[in-house]
Amino acid sequence: MADKAQIQEAIKTQGEVVRKLKTEKASKEQIDEEVAKLLELKAQLGGDEGKHQFTLKTAKGTRDYNPKQMAIREKVFNTIISCFKRHGAETIDTLVFELKETLTGKYGEDSKLIYDLKDQGGELLSLRYDLTVPFARYLAMNKVTNIKRYHIAKVYRRDNPAMTRGRYREFYQCDFDIAGQYDPMIPDAECLKIVHEILSELELGDFRIKVNDRRILDGMFAVCGVPDDKFRTICSTVDKLDKMSWEDVRSEMVKEKGLSEEAADQIGQYVSLQGGMDLAERLLQDAKMSQSKQACAGLTDMKQLFSYLQLFQVTDKVVFDLSLARGLDYYTGVIYEAILTQTSPVPIAAAQNGVGEKAEEGVSVGSVAGGGRYDGLVGMFDPKGRKVPCVGVSIGIERVFSIMEQKAEASAEKVRTTETQVMVASAQKNLLEERLRLTAELWNAGIKAEVMYKKNPKLLSQLQHCEDTGIPLVAILGEQELKDGVVKLRTVNSREEVDVSRAELVEEIKRRTSDV
Amino acid sequence: MADKAQIQEAIKTQGEVVRKLKTEKASKEQIDEEVAKLLELKAQLGGDEGKHQFTLKTAKGTRDYNPKQMAIREKVFNTIISCFKRHGAETIDTLVFELKETLTGKYGEDSKLIYDLKDQGGELLSLRYDLTVPFARYLAMNKVTNIKRYHIAKVYRRDNPAMTRGRYREFYQCDFDIAGQYDPMIPDAECLKIVHEILSELELGDFRIKVNDRRILDGMFAVCGVPDDKFRTICSTVDKLDKMSWEDVRSEMVKEKGLSEEAADQIGQYVSLQGGMDLAERLLQDAKMSQSKQACAGLTDMKQLFSYLQLFQVTDKVVFDLSLARGLDYYTGVIYEAILTQTSPVPIAAAQNGVGEKAEEGVSVGSVAGGGRYDGLVGMFDPKGRKVPCVGVSIGIERVFSIMEQKAEASAEKVRTTETQVMVASAQKNLLEERLRLTAELWNAGIKAEVMYKKNPKLLSQLQHCEDTGIPLVAILGEQELKDGVVKLRTVNSREEVDVSRAELVEEIKRRTSDV
Repeated sequence: MADKAQIQEAIKTQGEVVRKLKTEKASKEQIDEEVAKLLELKAQLGGDEGKHQFTLKTAKGTRDYNPKQMAIREKVFNTIISCFKRHGAETIDTLVFELKETLTGKYGEDSKLIYDLKDQGGELLSLRYDLTVPFARYLAMNKVTNIKRYHIAKVYRRDNPAMTRGRYREFYQCDFDIAGQYDPMIPDAECLKIVHEILSELELGDFRIKVNDRRILDGMFAVCGVPDDKFRTICSTVDKLDKMSWEDVRSEMVKEKGLSEEAADQIGQYVSLQGGMDLAERLLQDAKMSQSKQACAGLTDMKQLFSYLQLFQVTDKVVFDLSLARGLDYYTGVIYEAILTQTSPVPIAAAQNGVGEKAEEGVSVGSVAGGGRYDGLVGMFDPKGRKVPCVGVSIGIERVFSIMEQKAEASAEKVRTTETQVMVASAQKNLLEERLRLTAELWNAGIKAEVMYKKNPKLLSQLQHCEDTGIPLVAILGEQELKDGVVKLRTVNSREEVDVSRAELVEEIKRRTSDV
Repeated sequence: MADKAQIQEAIKTQGEVVRKLKTEKASKEQIDEEVAKLLELKAQLGGDEGKHQFTLKTAKGTRDYNPKQMAIREKVFNTIISCFKRHGAETIDTLVFELKETLTGKYGEDSKLIYDLKDQGGELLSLRYDLTVPFARYLAMNKVTNIKRYHIAKVYRRDNPAMTRGRYREFYQCDFDIAGQYDPMIPDAECLKIVHEILSELELGDFRIKVNDRRILDGMFAVCGVPDDKFRTICSTVDKLDKMSWEDVRSEMVKEKGLSEEAADQIGQYVSLQGGMDLAERLLQDAKMSQSKQACAGLTDMKQLFSYLQLFQVTDKVVFDLSLARGLDYYTGVIYEAILTQTSPVPIAAAQNGVGEKAEEGVSVGSVAGGGRYDGLVGMFDPKGRKVPCVGVSIGIERVFSIMEQKAEASAEKVRTTETQVMVASAQKNLLEERLRLTAELWNAGIKAEVMYKKNPKLLSQLQHCEDTGIPLVAILGEQELKDGVVKLRTVNSREEVDVSRAELVEEIKRRTSDV
């Protein structure tokens, strides 16, 4: 290690370098680099020198989770994971980064939102943009042909952040997918059942699940006279029906996309249709629609799907809606999207993040889940092009967090960030050792207990800590209690106190906090 | 969208560009870039064209977690998180990346192992290298002066991976820290209690926790005649005592670091000492050691620490060991490290990752936890230099995973990757609808149930699935059972079957799987 004087000299020189660059208005990169060197030097010196240089913030468009947010997050995750497990799902975890080429060509225009890692020698890497492409890569790489898995993890998008609307550059996705060759529509129906269960259990208010099928859409476009090469772009326009009036959508089709007025009007008639199994049956008889083989295949499957949904008792919330299009290219069959139908206290969000990658474009205001069937994606990764049919759903977990956070704020009830059952306290001095001994006894018996890290804390400050953090019980030790072999057990809310023998303390705490 | 012919033309041209570069032996970066463009084009075309270009792998030095590994991971996390919660800890989450300058000057030479993000305009970002620096940044940024928090998350190091030894470039850290100004050694003792609880509950075999104090080490160096500017480098050499003999350590001190033979020998006498409170007392009387104010402060606190450890009943595993040095610069007081003392079936690992950042250098073979007190780090981030004293521990979770995975492999018991309680099956044809109806009933009652996604699966294949995945019960439906309003409930292991009425099925399944 160089000595202090040497380092101080180097800091002086380097400081001049930085000042010179700034005066000369050098590039930000160049200045940053020299500032970094300066900071390194100051850090070597230790002490106070480097302190005021730090920009104390997180990256643009991001935020940390504080304990309160984490407590809400944990509750939401528990509900969702319980549901996934109830349906026999396994979980996997993939890396936060993938080879750049793995992501190449999967996201169309949105590729520009991918975070790349710096080329520090070796492979070119990018942060994952969603969980679906890594899942498909995982299946192909490990030759997995059957799996029911969930994956909850963060993904990264260099988007223009709209943090006030719950959109961040780092955010969670929460995906459930069933991969494998099965009889038609059974796994698809299970995905919808799962959405129904999760949204019911989270108590976010009333909801509706719209379903459609890419084959029905494509068949509809064909019979309405949309040229083949305009299917995708017209599909994107239809996808805007949840945010735009029909007139505006029609105008975009005709004026911007060059569709004939006649074709647009025919589409207009179909996309206004909503219903259930009856609608599928009617369309199968429809003179025009029935001309498309694709549409008929989709409609037959739609009927099948509704018959399974009836068995699952979820048809109360599911609507076959011909206006549902969804943005991503990789869907090949059934598609769906869940929306909250009540006006929520949450600011209206375009909520791209809210619904995860499967709902990336054209999501309704209030959309909280979305997904569909994608039978071709895994084959894009398999060296021999072997296909693994997949169907999945993504829960719009960030949007759920926002709603839950706002509910918590509106509610009188305090969000607890710990699960502590009892505080071990004393009113008198010189009882630290006794408090520590009892606390260890409780820990060893599996009780969640806290003790103040002070030799002689005031009783009031110990009680105040319980009030602040929601600890329901206090075990108070004093000379008399020690002599009698008891503990004064105080209920924080009611302020009632009762003597409990040391031998019975653990059971008594368990009994009183069994609902914690 | 361009038409097919146009794209095919573009692919042809781009293919020639790539071939030309390869012939000319252009740089890998240049070729990669052009190949990426080619793949983008092929992806636009869709179909089979792009398929064979993908390198189907994860980034160097990394791996996915499969369902079996996830099941083990979940079990380990549950044990550890339960312990943290028992001690009243909250949790926070920080971002996977930090501003580059936040990490600058914190890791010394290891800064070269930090992953930087590509400069895509905007801020310069790096992937986090550990959880401690982000924690300190969080405390300073949010002006938190008191918190007991745990954080389990992945960190990133561009290290030379040694994957066979459980060292990866993406790996978990599992940190527990107590921040705040408290009476001496109480939170420090709780950290050791937590290590004791976790290692006991994980049943990894016998272990020992070595403790020492940076002030005792520095005082010892001073009284042995080590020059001030050699403290850190001599400390690093002492840190190697768990891997090198004293002779080799002595030789490094004298020959490489230029220490006098006399000083080295004096150090040699001290670092061979091990004990408990008695040793701390003896050293306080030691003619030489007692000359150092620093050492005396450390030894007095060590006595205090052991008195608390006695109350916590963990002194059976804790040893005051003067040879424990630990690598990181930021420790200011107590330091500790837990090692497994039994020969484990796990390949010997230098286990840098195994112990997280707090055990980064100089970790014993078998080290599974480590940490210490760092009172200066938060002050490095605070604009006014306000200090927040901290003490913490990092569980070597990746090493624990390896051990658990090897235990699982050695054991006859199969690792279950789902929690499914019952499989709804049928022996006869045309009962899909009845199976789905019953399955939904069970889901709605909170039972974890699976059903095969086939119209007419063979009973044998349904039973085989149970055997393969460890599902303990099968609910078998047939014409007769439907008529009688019962279900044949089969125990997979014993092959016993018994008729249970539909009304009692849920309770019966719960009763039989209450330990699942």
